[in-house]
Amino acid sequence: MSDCIFCKIINGEIPSAKVFENEHVLAFLDISQVTKGHTLIIPKIHKENVFELTPEIAKNIFEVAPTIANALKAEFNPIGMNLVNNNGEHAGQSVFHFHLHLIPRYGKGDGFGAVWKNNQSEYTQDDYKKIAEAISKNIQ
Amino acid sequence: MSDCIFCKIINGEIPSAKVFENEHVLAFLDISQVTKGHTLIIPKIHKENVFELTPEIAKNIFEVAPTIANALKAEFNPIGMNLVNNNGEHAGQSVFHFHLHLIPRYGKGDGFGAVWKNNQSEYTQDDYKKIAEAISKNIQ
Ligand SMILES: [Zn+2]
Ligand SMILES: [Zn+2]
Ligand SMILES: [Zn+2]
Ligand SMILES: [Zn+2]
Repeated sequence: MSDCIFCKIINGEIPSAKVFENEHVLAFLDISQVTKGHTLIIPKIHKENVFELTPEIAKNIFEVAPTIANALKAEFNPIGMNLVNNNGEHAGQSVFHFHLHLIPRYGKGDGFGAVWKNNQSEYTQDDYKKIAEAISKNIQ
Repeated sequence: MSDCIFCKIINGEIPSAKVFENEHVLAFLDISQVTKGHTLIIPKIHKENVFELTPEIAKNIFEVAPTIANALKAEFNPIGMNLVNNNGEHAGQSVFHFHLHLIPRYGKGDGFGAVWKNNQSEYTQDDYKKIAEAISKNIQ
């Protein structure tokens, strides 16, 4: 896509700090460095979000995640790591070319954090069953 | 692993609300339902975290993510979706069998949220180059 900053990085029109590259994907430092070593993996084909990925492109992206995660771990010895992919502006996506964030963690207040509300008390066993069936009927 | 709750779900020893299953992976509702439809994808082989995944297992997990994401989208019409994988207690991992969260988003205060600090002002072009080189030298 001609106006996509990540496509321009892939094409070499815009420089990036490259961590890894193969035929299908590019990994480079996120310029925001939410934490030290914060890296993005992107497909070389322009796809806006997870909804647009083919199974093949999805495989290509995640295939390299363990290798890059282990390289980050070896270099920075973090105490944990979050992998995050945001789809849609309301989910925090700001560049509309699919990207998977690898965020090494160094402790509270290190730049990344997440809020998780546990809503288990609002659901019965029957609710879970109905929701799961409603989702799975959309598959195939 | 004999004391792993997700291995017990795979074996059928503990019930779950199943969304999808194939030879390699199982997808089921997260009991916490951080947001409605909150689903986990797990490998059928016990692997603790991203660092332990083989490229092949990683592929198997993410291959099905677009299909399940689109099934969630079709059912609940969310305004966005976050995919999240936590590795290590300090990164929010509570079950130590790799799992990828699919979290449909419905707006602020919907149960999930993330904090992202932008640290770009603390880095020079030369810093980015050095960090990227330090990481990539650990690959292969
Ligand atoms: Zn693009
Ligand atoms: Zn982003
Ligand atoms: Zn397990
Ligand atoms: Zn979890």
